[in-house]
Formats: sequence, structure tokens, C-alpha cells
Amino acid sequence: MEKNLLGTNVIAQIGILVHDIEKTSQVYADFFGVENPGWQITDVVDKAQTEYRGKRTEARAKLAFFKMGSLQLELIEPDEHPSTWREYLNEHGEGPHHIAFRIEGMKDKVMTLDRNQMPLLQKGEYTGGRYAYIDTFEQLKVIVELLENDKK
Amino acid sequence: MEKNLLGTNVIAQIGILVHDIEKTSQVYADFFGVENPGWQITDVVDKAQTEYRGKRTEARAKLAFFKMGSLQLELIEPDEHPSTWREYLNEHGEGPHHIAFRIEGMKDKVMTLDRNQMPLLQKGEYTGGRYAYIDTFEQLKVIVELLENDKK
Repeated sequence: MEKNLLGTNVIAQIGILVHDIEKTSQVYADFFGVENPGWQITDVVDKAQTEYRGKRTEARAKLAFFKMGSLQLELIEPDEHPSTWREYLNEHGEGPHHIAFRIEGMKDKVMTLDRNQMPLLQKGEYTGGRYAYIDTFEQLKVIVELLENDKK
Repeated sequence: MEKNLLGTNVIAQIGILVHDIEKTSQVYADFFGVENPGWQITDVVDKAQTEYRGKRTEARAKLAFFKMGSLQLELIEPDEHPSTWREYLNEHGEGPHHIAFRIEGMKDKVMTLDRNQMPLLQKGEYTGGRYAYIDTFEQLKVIVELLENDKK
């Protein structure tokens, strides 16, 4: 394996899959004594250009973000269309899905990981940036998400 | 549910269960381009006073700690004795097990959580402090660990 594949080891986010984001986000808000951030839904496929295992997918997810110290905890409630979220939720049940890192040079990073037997699982665009989930499960025992925000 | 049960929402640690800590810690070191921190083993029951579901247990685990930004990523390879580590690994396979928070007043926090239907799963002592795993899975979709270090 090549070394230092991401150029960072700062965990920016933990993503947790849930069946009911309204219920679980309220529990989180109460448990930690913070405001309920509400949820937002990922963009439709035409805007997000979502691809899962190399194919366009209409999958969307409701997301709720909690600031937990220096990182985000993200709750994710996926719809039924094919996605890493839905597949992982069906196979593993509710619980942690990924750890995320802010990177630069998405295309190069994805190619480097692929060359090291860690293939792209899913990718998409969001306002101001893009994400990629990488199948690092065999190596790291958790999925890695890459987040690249556009320079302002 | 009562509110703000821990008095903090700063995630200090993510714990990941693995079958082979030597192998996986070397993969982490290479992947992130950092030194392999090696592993250490938790104390024997007489010193750690380890209890799992209210009973003394001889369970021990090998631990490897990686600094990832402001938090620790902890790899955990448990032995075969009863523990939350072994139970969760047998049921869920390798992957994330807990998120941890540094707290003060362990006894009070554990009582508060228990009163809110989040019972103590496992506790023990380590040099300079103590830990408690709480069964928050139903509520938060992840186990919470409390860490209390003695004042220096």
C-alpha cells in the first residue's frame, strides 16, 4: 500500500445511519442539551449527479448535523433507492457508517485509493462541493468519506 | 428524558473493534502516513476491577491509539472473555463500537443515565482514571463511553 493516501488524518465528521431522523435528532438534541438542528435533504440526482457503484441513482437522504467539539456528527436517513447508505443500513442496521476527511484534489485522491484496492462506492455534488464514499471497510473497518469544498 | 446528560458534547474518541490489531494498526499507520503507535493491553481484572453487566469479568483488550485531529481513534482487539467489546464484535463484526466523552463525576453521570433508561454496560479502572460504557444504542444508535481522568 502507498502511504499517507489522504494528505490528512483530521477526522471532520462521523456519519450515523438511522431509520427515523426526526426522532433520533430530537433524542440527540435532548441528550446533549443542544438545539435540534432540523434536517435537510440531499439534492435530486440531476443536480447532485449521484452515482452508486458506477451507476446513476435517484437515492437521496435526509441529513442532520450536530457540532460535537471540532467535528460534525451527521445523522443520515436514506430513502429506498440504491446507495451506500441504504445498503449499509440494510446489512448492518442503524449505527456508524463512515468517518469523513476534508481533502483537496478529489479526482487524484479517488484514483490513488482505487489503485490501492479501495474503490469508489458513491459520489455526488452538493452546493459548494462534492463528496465520495470509498470502500475502505476491509482495510480500516469503516467507510471513509472524502469531502472537497470549492475554494471561495 | 432529562437534558444535557453528560455536560459535554465534545467527542474525545472513536473506538473501532478489530480482529487483528497488529495488522489493522499497521494499515492505519500506512494509510494516514503516521507512525504505528503499537498496542497496549488493558489491566488484569484485579487491578482494573472490570465489570460487565454487573459481574466481574477477566476480559482484557489490546488497544492502539491514533491521534486524528483533536480526537483519538482507538482500535480494540478483545479477548474471548465476556465484555461489551467481545459481544459487539460477535454480533456486529468489525467496525465502530463507541464514541467517548471526557466527563467529571462518574458515579452521578452513570446514575443519571441509568435513570433515563441507559444502563451501565461495562466499567473499569485504568492508570489515572476510569471508564464506563453505557448502553445508549437504542437512543443514539451508538454506544457511549465515559472517560474520567483523575485531577493531577
